[in-house]
Amino acid sequence: MLGICRDAQIVDISHAVAKYAVADGAYLLRAALPWFPVGVHVAVVDPGVGTPRRPVAIRATRGDVLIGPDNGLLLPAAGALGGVAVARELANRDLWLADATSTFHGRDIFSPVAAHLAAGVAEFDAVGPEVERSSLVRLPDASASVRNGDLASTVTYVDSFGNVRLAGGRAELEAAFGDVTAGAAFAVTVPRGPGLRATFAPSFGHVETGATLLYVDSVGNLALADNQGNLAARVGLRPGDGVRVRRA
Amino acid sequence: MLGICRDAQIVDISHAVAKYAVADGAYLLRAALPWFPVGVHVAVVDPGVGTPRRPVAIRATRGDVLIGPDNGLLLPAAGALGGVAVARELANRDLWLADATSTFHGRDIFSPVAAHLAAGVAEFDAVGPEVERSSLVRLPDASASVRNGDLASTVTYVDSFGNVRLAGGRAELEAAFGDVTAGAAFAVTVPRGPGLRATFAPSFGHVETGATLLYVDSVGNLALADNQGNLAARVGLRPGDGVRVRRA
Amino acid sequence: MLGICRDAQIVDISHAVAKYAVADGAYLLRAALPWFPVGVHVAVVDPGVGTPRRPVAIRATRGDVLIGPDNGLLLPAAGALGGVAVARELANRDLWLADATSTFHGRDIFSPVAAHLAAGVAEFDAVGPEVERSSLVRLPDASASVRNGDLASTVTYVDSFGNVRLAGGRAELEAAFGDVTAGAAFAVTVPRGPGLRATFAPSFGHVETGATLLYVDSVGNLALADNQGNLAARVGLRPGDGVRVRRA
Repeated sequence: MLGICRDAQIVDISHAVAKYAVADGAYLLRAALPWFPVGVHVAVVDPGVGTPRRPVAIRATRGDVLIGPDNGLLLPAAGALGGVAVARELANRDLWLADATSTFHGRDIFSPVAAHLAAGVAEFDAVGPEVERSSLVRLPDASASVRNGDLASTVTYVDSFGNVRLAGGRAELEAAFGDVTAGAAFAVTVPRGPGLRATFAPSFGHVETGATLLYVDSVGNLALADNQGNLAARVGLRPGDGVRVRRA
Repeated sequence: MLGICRDAQIVDISHAVAKYAVADGAYLLRAALPWFPVGVHVAVVDPGVGTPRRPVAIRATRGDVLIGPDNGLLLPAAGALGGVAVARELANRDLWLADATSTFHGRDIFSPVAAHLAAGVAEFDAVGPEVERSSLVRLPDASASVRNGDLASTVTYVDSFGNVRLAGGRAELEAAFGDVTAGAAFAVTVPRGPGLRATFAPSFGHVETGATLLYVDSVGNLALADNQGNLAARVGLRPGDGVRVRRA
Repeated sequence: MLGICRDAQIVDISHAVAKYAVADGAYLLRAALPWFPVGVHVAVVDPGVGTPRRPVAIRATRGDVLIGPDNGLLLPAAGALGGVAVARELANRDLWLADATSTFHGRDIFSPVAAHLAAGVAEFDAVGPEVERSSLVRLPDASASVRNGDLASTVTYVDSFGNVRLAGGRAELEAAFGDVTAGAAFAVTVPRGPGLRATFAPSFGHVETGATLLYVDSVGNLALADNQGNLAARVGLRPGDGVRVRRA
């Protein structure tokens, strides 16, 4: 990228996404980008490299451009930046490296297109033909819903602390339980092993070390954690697992 | 930070500090900052996020500003930069993100305050009220001392090679043993397992592969290592462990 | 480096090279540098720190300067940048940090010399006396050759996906087997366990998930991989292992 855009300011959000974990990458990107200045963002978690999955650029309503594989990785972040304004397929090989290989699209396609846009030597419209927004590949939706007075939710991400991020936020919590104040006790059913008891708290330090809390995380989602412990490892929770929360 | 200070030059010292290991973070920061230009430095290892522990900014005598939680993380580095000139509590919410959350002070409080200072749009005095230097939380002191002609010291840090950093430097070594020259042999008592034999050497390559050396590390502290081996894993040494060194 | 060259644009290629693995570091550097702009590149994988191994600077034909230990780490990259034009020993202590230690040459010697060159305050010739190109330490050559109609090769690197990079490229493959097209089947003999069946394919997505492919990697070398699996872990392949490829 620096070879094309000499004064690019490159920020490495993460190189530690689990292999092939498109949903993890999508979560991290969505969690990070709203706090970045408007920019050109490249993301690659790409089990299908070399297959016909499309390389795409998405212009978000906020003005950002997101570049990567059309496998669901970019859409949650685009949503958090106001939604998809336009999407285009990266078909213009003039913006790729001259010798694009079939196994390293991050280096040969995504990064050089991003650098050409960041440098202002190419317009967004030049990357390739527009594609239908509805044709973009979308990851399965993880949502929270009220069922028989309980809150049913799904694990969306397990962070490096073992904290468990869930679908839904304060609105879904209040839809299920009305007003919820710090100290409220909940019982949580998990797929493997006995259930959990969790205290609703604004942050980790409000419960004892080792105790489990239910909280609204820094992205606005519900989350479960053991204060200074690894909840996900302790009870075997992983992305995609369903959990059920009820008043204890 | 780039949203507030467009031309900030951000250096990532480490994102690999062990979870909750405030003393490890303090060691790394103290080991790194003296070799950096004067700047604004943010550090977060923060098991107490969301509790009343204070967010602080410390101006060091060298001119740097250190920003983070008041839990001992910043003080060793401040000491290595000439000491604490002034400390202030981060109470001015105008310098925080508008929607500060309770679980991600690194993003919502520490980084934006740092960026406002780095950009020059806020003065140090504006971050909040001064706090007594003596009221800053301090980690337990790890020191080396001469006892019955031996040198008693403490493990302060185990690096990624398994090299074991100790309290005290050449001065303490000479206080215990007088002049010490390369090749001098020492016996080291450790908490678990039999003792070690270590050769005093200027660097790893001066002893056989696999042999143990006692040396003065790149920060000026005493250290123990197996040349091309992992000493800490081999003998189970960890931060806080006491060791005793005597002439062999 | 920023203390010497204020506006240096520093790119961290990797801090995750396996400990002491000079050949791994050499591979990564050689794989990365041809895609960088001409610059000053520092690399340190240095089991011999503190021994008489020389610190060197190499000017490559493309114009880059490579700085590090004279232990073979830099030469493959220099070769990929057109070859070694001139090599010099870092003997001019005016370009080092004032208090160079014996265990951290990355910080005290290599980086400050690089920063002085990058800042333009020192010329390449000023770093120290020229050394014979033929005297530079060279890693054992890994090469591919045709033996009895088979292709004999060597594992040069195992990446974080467990993909196995081999000596030789398309030219060696065609020397052994003539024209090779996608879908061609090969049998691969490995040092431990039964052999592999691999399909020649342009990229991972062209074979079934879990199937083994033989491909030309993004650097131009032959490579073996399990699509979305870890081939190296599955069959115990590691750098230096010999493999034999024949038509199946």
